[in-house]
Amino acid sequence: MQLDLNRRSGVPMYRQLAAQLREQIVSGALAAGYRLPPERELAARLEVNRTTVLQAYQQLKDEHLIASRVGKGTFVASVESGASVGREGDPRTPRTTRTPAVVHTIRDGAAPASDAAEPPVIRPPWSVLFSDYSNRFTYHDIAEADRAQRGSGGRDAHVIDFATGSPNPADIPDDLLRAVSLEAFASHEFDGQPESPIEGFDELRDLLARHMRDRGVGCDARNVMVLSGSEQGIDLIVRAFVNPGDHVLVEQSTFFPALQTFRSADARIVGVPVDADGMRTDLLEGYCARFRPKLIYTIPTFHNPTGTTMPMERRRTLIDVAHRYQCLVVEDDAYGDLWYGSADEGRPVPLAGMENSGYVMYLSTFSKTVTSGLRTGWVVADPHVVARLAALRRMVDQHTSTSSQRICLELLKEGRIAGHVAGLTRAYRARRDATVAALERWAPDGMRWSVPAGGYYVWVALPDGVRSLDLLARCRARGVTFMPGGVFDVDETDDAHIRLNMVRPDAADVALGVRVIAECTRRCAENRSQ
Amino acid sequence: MQLDLNRRSGVPMYRQLAAQLREQIVSGALAAGYRLPPERELAARLEVNRTTVLQAYQQLKDEHLIASRVGKGTFVASVESGASVGREGDPRTPRTTRTPAVVHTIRDGAAPASDAAEPPVIRPPWSVLFSDYSNRFTYHDIAEADRAQRGSGGRDAHVIDFATGSPNPADIPDDLLRAVSLEAFASHEFDGQPESPIEGFDELRDLLARHMRDRGVGCDARNVMVLSGSEQGIDLIVRAFVNPGDHVLVEQSTFFPALQTFRSADARIVGVPVDADGMRTDLLEGYCARFRPKLIYTIPTFHNPTGTTMPMERRRTLIDVAHRYQCLVVEDDAYGDLWYGSADEGRPVPLAGMENSGYVMYLSTFSKTVTSGLRTGWVVADPHVVARLAALRRMVDQHTSTSSQRICLELLKEGRIAGHVAGLTRAYRARRDATVAALERWAPDGMRWSVPAGGYYVWVALPDGVRSLDLLARCRARGVTFMPGGVFDVDETDDAHIRLNMVRPDAADVALGVRVIAECTRRCAENRSQ
Repeated sequence: MQLDLNRRSGVPMYRQLAAQLREQIVSGALAAGYRLPPERELAARLEVNRTTVLQAYQQLKDEHLIASRVGKGTFVASVESGASVGREGDPRTPRTTRTPAVVHTIRDGAAPASDAAEPPVIRPPWSVLFSDYSNRFTYHDIAEADRAQRGSGGRDAHVIDFATGSPNPADIPDDLLRAVSLEAFASHEFDGQPESPIEGFDELRDLLARHMRDRGVGCDARNVMVLSGSEQGIDLIVRAFVNPGDHVLVEQSTFFPALQTFRSADARIVGVPVDADGMRTDLLEGYCARFRPKLIYTIPTFHNPTGTTMPMERRRTLIDVAHRYQCLVVEDDAYGDLWYGSADEGRPVPLAGMENSGYVMYLSTFSKTVTSGLRTGWVVADPHVVARLAALRRMVDQHTSTSSQRICLELLKEGRIAGHVAGLTRAYRARRDATVAALERWAPDGMRWSVPAGGYYVWVALPDGVRSLDLLARCRARGVTFMPGGVFDVDETDDAHIRLNMVRPDAADVALGVRVIAECTRRCAENRSQ
Repeated sequence: MQLDLNRRSGVPMYRQLAAQLREQIVSGALAAGYRLPPERELAARLEVNRTTVLQAYQQLKDEHLIASRVGKGTFVASVESGASVGREGDPRTPRTTRTPAVVHTIRDGAAPASDAAEPPVIRPPWSVLFSDYSNRFTYHDIAEADRAQRGSGGRDAHVIDFATGSPNPADIPDDLLRAVSLEAFASHEFDGQPESPIEGFDELRDLLARHMRDRGVGCDARNVMVLSGSEQGIDLIVRAFVNPGDHVLVEQSTFFPALQTFRSADARIVGVPVDADGMRTDLLEGYCARFRPKLIYTIPTFHNPTGTTMPMERRRTLIDVAHRYQCLVVEDDAYGDLWYGSADEGRPVPLAGMENSGYVMYLSTFSKTVTSGLRTGWVVADPHVVARLAALRRMVDQHTSTSSQRICLELLKEGRIAGHVAGLTRAYRARRDATVAALERWAPDGMRWSVPAGGYYVWVALPDGVRSLDLLARCRARGVTFMPGGVFDVDETDDAHIRLNMVRPDAADVALGVRVIAECTRRCAENRSQ
């Protein structure tokens, strides 16, 4: 056993000792069963403090490379006992007999030629290698959402798409985007500023803070961090705050990527019932007392998927309960700009505009008003939170694409985006009215909905006995898609509702689409009655 | 106890029952201690299957809302016992006496006026609310890296910056980027395609596959997914594959955001020793036998931070061991395009070009050759892996910014990027040579380094007794920064090395910068000797 410590190195002595022993154990130079010198003896031999040897041995014990038995001393552990530190029941079968290296020569990207004499390489056993979390993840609602969306979208002109949660391509302001992009890139303003601060360019944070003040949220640039879409904010907030086992309260049906993100952190998700006025805040105190949640995730305005908007009284209750239980609130406000009411009704004030002690973290995005292709959203939060999210983001994507930020800067300057949103709101209000009118005209008995005050979605309760997945299959056969309610449900079992994105289809298709859904619903109901 | 089940609803009966009981318990309508009817009795009363009641009760037991005692029946649990489902020792102190709601009126973004009669809201106890993981995270190397980097960068002209891991702003091809951006956005090619597929635009995936084939990696567009920087690939791969407790092998010193990402998944990170030829693959079999790692993360070419390049023989060994232990390999090749050798030396072939059964996942980026502001990288992997990463990415950022993708498309077309990289390589080779010449001229006894064949970094071993953090403090006082070795070390204890980004400073500053480091090193060594 050769050991050679450098007592003037910047690497602590115990680490040098552990590293040298580790290498000799792993390489086989010290065989399994080899008895290591007692700590006191080795310390004397190396002329180091006994603690140094103690720490080195402890580290190697933690790595299962050595083991002590009382009265017998310290031994090199066998590979088998070492191997047991891996996942129990690991079904991978290492081929421990040494086979020749499998190396291919690649020429011009042609498929590599395999040497026939070599034993074949076992292809990766994917289902074993994938993490438990990701195996569960794929199995769940993603696949379902995909099924609902496949074949929809702009490419197949025959589909009437109430499913997809993004704008109709025809509503994307291509000309405006082209104009601002050309301005953004013709300018020399950003030369020598190729990278952005993690939190985003100062000028953009400033304009976003102004945009937020227009919405009724008092904040300045220090409260704002530019995100690569508001979804990224949920992910960062979860990393920053949620420990495994923490409880998170959500509306019983909600934005499903948020559910997946909470699951990814092993949070316990508790659904709070929703009625026509959004989250049942009368129950909230009970839920907080029972579950002591770390945070409440809510979409109080033009809710996805239910289209509901929480009245001021409920908002006050929510904030009051959050304060008393020191529970954080994540307010997801992706749709807040798309309000179809009139001035005398009073525009909903965001929770973040009613609270200034730091409990509410506010998320929004340009994905619903301009295009999700920009991948630009933002969070408004206490500077403590902004700093923490920025630190965590270093290991994710560093900052939002510089080109996207430049485009958003130009969009926000001189109120160009406000003009676009005003026009979009007019068009969307008309589509909302058309959808509701069509529902009133065609809907069969037992189908219920409420009229959303803004946003994208109308949430339709199906007549008794009609299952959303059966209805979806029928409608898709007739070229109409929507999202089945189960996708959004905390328990993934709600088969009694469907979500219609009333602003996604071409305006001319809305009435026909609703009529097809109504007819198919009637068929489903008849089938159930037989 | 009023219960009203709808047997034709799409919501399963047991869920309806659980939801109604939950609401009554949480609202207090059913008080703590209330005895629920026995399962059989309730089933008869509701005319449902006994299993329905069993399932509903089980769900509520899992939520700690009800509890059974043998021989006594099933009772509503008290809030106290319910509250115990929260984190033990949760130091948040709910103010359970109801206080008036705290609501502010915001006008023009002014600070909200507080009603003096109301009890003050307790500000969020951040350190309690932050997750354990994020509290650890911030405390670790990020702060250190920040300290090393603060004040550096292009804005303070007096700093000679060997620290920052991105290009010198003067090396960013502003004119090329402006030209391709204007072309990209003037074109109508992407009208009506505002969003990208998760994996990236087909045309870009195709061009990246061609780029990879030029590097010796056989692949096609199906193997390529566009990322928002290659770091995002590490994050997605970790989510897809790493279970808590899985072992991950890395070079003993490595790209530190990768370490943070592995830690975020509660992986056990094991450092494999590195010498002048990179990872000690002679030890790899022993590490795999001992630890059965889920994956090996490696930077085989122009390693960060050590500047080493694995010879072909080691690459073959690594792949062979990975095959036999069915261990995945993440090859991080951020610097592979920046090779300073001559044609007869033979350019290093990526691991991904030597393996085609799916074990190697390859990551690269435009951040080191163009600008990290683009936030565009890519992964090359088996289509199974691409599909899984795409599914997981839905909850992160959906896809890479459309504008960044368009710019990269234009860059790759007609070999424009190849021309830029060729020029950059010439400039960087000269800076590498200048750095090495300065080290040879000025370095004090005991300072050691090897000459990197490409990439950004030269890794300098300090003379015995000189600590990297002491040296950094001295150098920063004289306007020179670099990264201390501990930032990259798996154990965060290496204080004996420093990393110099030899291509980051202005060419004219390299010699002066190295001379300052050499002089400060000599001072540190003298101080130690006294």
